Order: sequence, then C-alpha cells, then structure tokens
Amino acid sequence: MTVYMSTGDDDVAIKILFCGICHSDLHSIKNEWKHSMYPLIPGHEIAGVVMEVGKKVNRFKSGDRVGVGCLVNSCQSCESCNNGFENHCNGGIFTYNSIDKDGTVTYGGYTTSVVVHERFVVRFPDSMPLDSSAPLLCAGITVYSPMKYHGLNAPGKHVGVLGLGGLGHVAVKFAKAFGMKVTVISSSPGKKREAMERLDADAFVVSGNGEEMEAARATMDGIINTVSANTPMAPYLALLKPTGKMILVGLPENPLEIPPFSLVVGNRTLAGSNIGGMADTQEMIDLAAKHGVTADIEVIGADYVNTAMERLAKADVRYRFVIDIGNTLQIAAAQ
Amino acid sequence: MTVYMSTGDDDVAIKILFCGICHSDLHSIKNEWKHSMYPLIPGHEIAGVVMEVGKKVNRFKSGDRVGVGCLVNSCQSCESCNNGFENHCNGGIFTYNSIDKDGTVTYGGYTTSVVVHERFVVRFPDSMPLDSSAPLLCAGITVYSPMKYHGLNAPGKHVGVLGLGGLGHVAVKFAKAFGMKVTVISSSPGKKREAMERLDADAFVVSGNGEEMEAARATMDGIINTVSANTPMAPYLALLKPTGKMILVGLPENPLEIPPFSLVVGNRTLAGSNIGGMADTQEMIDLAAKHGVTADIEVIGADYVNTAMERLAKADVRYRFVIDIGNTLQIAAAQ
Repeated sequence: MTVYMSTGDDDVAIKILFCGICHSDLHSIKNEWKHSMYPLIPGHEIAGVVMEVGKKVNRFKSGDRVGVGCLVNSCQSCESCNNGFENHCNGGIFTYNSIDKDGTVTYGGYTTSVVVHERFVVRFPDSMPLDSSAPLLCAGITVYSPMKYHGLNAPGKHVGVLGLGGLGHVAVKFAKAFGMKVTVISSSPGKKREAMERLDADAFVVSGNGEEMEAARATMDGIINTVSANTPMAPYLALLKPTGKMILVGLPENPLEIPPFSLVVGNRTLAGSNIGGMADTQEMIDLAAKHGVTADIEVIGADYVNTAMERLAKADVRYRFVIDIGNTLQIAAAQ
Repeated sequence: MTVYMSTGDDDVAIKILFCGICHSDLHSIKNEWKHSMYPLIPGHEIAGVVMEVGKKVNRFKSGDRVGVGCLVNSCQSCESCNNGFENHCNGGIFTYNSIDKDGTVTYGGYTTSVVVHERFVVRFPDSMPLDSSAPLLCAGITVYSPMKYHGLNAPGKHVGVLGLGGLGHVAVKFAKAFGMKVTVISSSPGKKREAMERLDADAFVVSGNGEEMEAARATMDGIINTVSANTPMAPYLALLKPTGKMILVGLPENPLEIPPFSLVVGNRTLAGSNIGGMADTQEMIDLAAKHGVTADIEVIGADYVNTAMERLAKADVRYRFVIDIGNTLQIAAAQ
C-alpha cells in the first residue's frame, strides 16, 4: 500500500472517500478572513477508511471507517486539552491553512489521503453512511456542542434556529433528536414548507414579517444563530425568554451591534461557540447514529468543485456539497 | 402615628431613614433613557424602619429594620415570579417612574415614607448599618446575582471588575468574600492604590496600558462590566479565558460593537444582568452581613442632593452618596 506521508507512532493514515464543502472553505480560498496561506487545500469534513496506523495506535486498525474534522492536532497538555476541549487549545492545529508542528502548512481534505494523530480521528458506526455523515464533523459538532453546554438539549425546551443552511438544517435535526420544540427563523418564506415538512420543524418565522416576529417574542429558551452575514441582532434577541441564550456559530465579517438593553433586560446571553472537543465530537457522531441524523447533501465529482463554490456563494445548495473523492479524484503516487 | 399612604393588607409602611443615590437616578431625572415621567421622585436604595404593617403581613412588624430596592411589586403569578425572579416579570413595578397597579406613577425613596407589598421588603440583620447597607439593594444585588448565576462565586476563580464606581467597588468586595482572585480594570491609574490597599483587590490593570492588558490576556474566568459608557469591548473580551463570561450590568446609551471572533474563538460569553429576585436580594444582604460587606459612602443632607448629582455626573464620589433622610428631610403630614 502506498502511503503519501509518513505515519508516526501515534498517527492514523486515512484514505479519503468523501469530503464536505463547508462555507469556511469558501471564506478561506477567497482569503476573506485575511489569514489564508497559498497554496491552500481546503476541506475539514473528511470521511474515509484507515489505511495504516502507527505502532502505538490501538484505537484504530486498517479498514476502520473514520473521519477527521476541523482539527488534526493540539498541544495535548494544556488545561483545555486535559478537559477535552482541544478546540480551545492555543496550540490547536487546524486541518488546513494552519502551521503544523514541523513548520509546514496543513492541507485539507480535497485530496486522497491524510495522516492525523489518533486523538483527532473519529469513528463512524457501521450504520452511518460516510457521504452524508462527513459534514457532521464540522456542521454537526458546531451546533451540537453549544446545545450540550448551554442546556439546549432538553425535551420540552424551545429552540430557534436562525438561518437554514448547512449548519441550520443539522441544528434542526439534533434539536428534534433531543425532543425539543424547534422554530426555524429565516428571511426566505420559500423555505417554510421544507423546514416543516422535510426537516420536521415545529414552526417557521419569516424574519422580515413583523407580525410573526412579534408573535414569537420571548418564547425561546435559546437560538442557534448560524447566519454569517451582518444583520441587526436586537429583533432576534427579543425572541428569547428571560435568561435565554443566543449562540453565535457563524462568523460575520463586521462587528455585531448589540443594544445593551437587549441583553440586560431579562438577563439574556450572547455566547460564541467554536466547533467542539474530540470526545464531544465522537459523542455527537454516536448520538447521530442512534437517531439517524445525517446531513442533507448533494454529492459531486471533484471536477465540479469550482461550480459548487459558485453555487455555495449564492446559497444554492440544500444543504451541503460533498465531494466523492474516492470515485472521482486520482492523484499519482509520490515516488 | 401618621401614615401618608394607605397600608393594604399585604403592605408594609416604612419610615425612610436613608436613601442611596444610584446612577440610574441621574439617568432618570435627565430623561436619558427617554421614558421619564415628571414629576419624578428617584431613589431605589431605601433603608428605614417599619411603621405599620397590613393585617395579613406576618414577616415584619413595627420597628423592624428593612429596605426596599428597585422593585415594589410584580404580577406574583408568572413563571418568573414563581421561580423567584420578580426582576424578569413583565408586570414588574419599579420603585419609581413606573405605572402602579392603580394606574398612578410610583415615587422613589427621596422622601420620608414608602408603602410596599411585603414580598418586596428586605430585612437588614442587626449588625448592618442602615446608611452603608442601603446601596446594596441596587448596587449589591446587581453584581451579586450574576456572580451567583454565572458561577463567578467560587474560591480560586479569577474575576475582573471593569470600572471602579458604585457597582464596581461592591463587586470587588463580594468577589473577595467569595474567596476569588480579583483584578480591577480601570482607565484611571490613580485608582490603583485605593483598589489594592483599601478594597483588597489582588491586581489592577490600566485599560489604556497595552502591556498590562497583554499580560492579563486570557486569564479571567469572568468580568463584571460596570461601565455605562460606550467603549470597544474586544480588548476586554480578550482578557477572558476560554468559556469565560463578561457580564454586562451597565447600560451604555449606544449599541456595543462586538466582533464575532471575540466571542466565537474560545467560546466566550457576553451576558446581561438586571438586578435580581427578592429571595436572592435577601440572600445577598445576609451574606453581606456575614462578611461585613457594605458600600463605601458619603452621607449627605437632603439639601445637598443637587450638588451630589453634579458631582456624580463627574464620577466625583467614592463610591456612593447616601441621603440622610431621617435627620435632614421633613415633609408636612398630609391632612
């Protein structure tokens, strides 16, 4: 078997079969966050099978169905790492566009293989399809983690999902899996039928409809805000009950404008959340398997990626593109 | 005994001895929040003795040392009220400038007596001086409640107090009572000695000093933000550890500008907090009595109020004016 990179003692070499296209990939290739390093290979929703493991690895073996999300390494010794929050480690190494421990730049999953420290490899239960599960490694954990840590995972609670895209549609599915009441809040009235019939949301509020927004005022325990554009926050914060929490998982380019009264009156919270730790990521995958949660995807060939990026920029995808790497991408083996 | 208002069955009539001057009083008399109703009598840090109680009142009796804070009534039947959070009740009636159940406007504590439903009366333990305890009914509960509900009350944790004024100096005292490490963050280098020597803060950071701010980066579990002016928040949010929380208790006039990365990276939180419930207010007073926490005050006569307001506007008070109502204000009894 040809392995393209050396597999260290603690490493797992993975043959990539599928890779999701995350909006971060688009931000990165366009350098919209101002820290892109070219050449840049995006992709952090990786699913595939183990090709080889290092001699100290005992959690995985050749042939295992596995995935890699946004992180490929961290310091593994700080307080955050020790508490299972590798996502907060100052030495965290992202799957692409990040400086690795050897000083090289990391390349993501739009390729045929990847070598990763075993701590950052997630196992897919046999019941999970690799293509539609791949996006859970970013979109899934991004919404699951804050739902867990902010108490938005209890039956009977009411959560709003702001924005129905790659993150939003997965948030709806997890919220339903938790037994919660889910209201989708969207600027697109056209998404109502889909949200309620296909995704099983309990209610739909058109953000531009003052009457609907007023009727939903102070009814929600939390809102998962997946919108990465700059829109006024006060009307959405008003949908929260006292002590309700809006969780920010999108990254708009400009500062948010937050009227202090929107938070102080009723003790409301605006909290950011950034992916999740590795144990939580495995827990999320196992819960997804149990409840049959996967992403709604459009599988594409590698030669369609540029077109997919153009469509993604126009939000013309329901809801995630996934590249069929295994069947459509060949790279000559390095000699 | 002359009682100036009728005392209902559940009411407590209180002879006011002291009333603190809160910054809200200044906002209100100047109509800076755009909802002042004149004539307006401010004052919601009221301490005095019970003159008379209604026939259903059994928690208080004539002569008891008591106080009244920001609320004089609420619906007493909603979910918030039932859970002890009268401060979140939509039918909450504020001590002044609020429409009472009978349609009249409430008047605050810059007068000689007040009649209040017993649920909104707090008892001062015998050991507490009424003058320096009065400000705790607003300033104290405003900082105590978020410290309790956001876990910023555990020994060994590190809390920043942003702004050293009426609220800030009480926050320092409660944080020390909880056994926490306290860093005062202030734009005034001149407050350092006082913060550390008199208030026993553990550290002091001058917000305009880049070196000191950098050294304090990512060290704090929480920040109590008492500043009611509009300043950039990103430098202060950077002082928080991952999952750290900034609690907003001041009310700047304009929206805060929050760069999304400041919250999303490291899962940081910005939470508002608005006074507290009545059970928490009594708990706060009892804890203050146990630890000898009171406000640092300057006692003034009623005829000094206008000058005090001018000085307060310039932050020229360490840290709270308290009006000696009992000895300096006489109002002819209504006939």
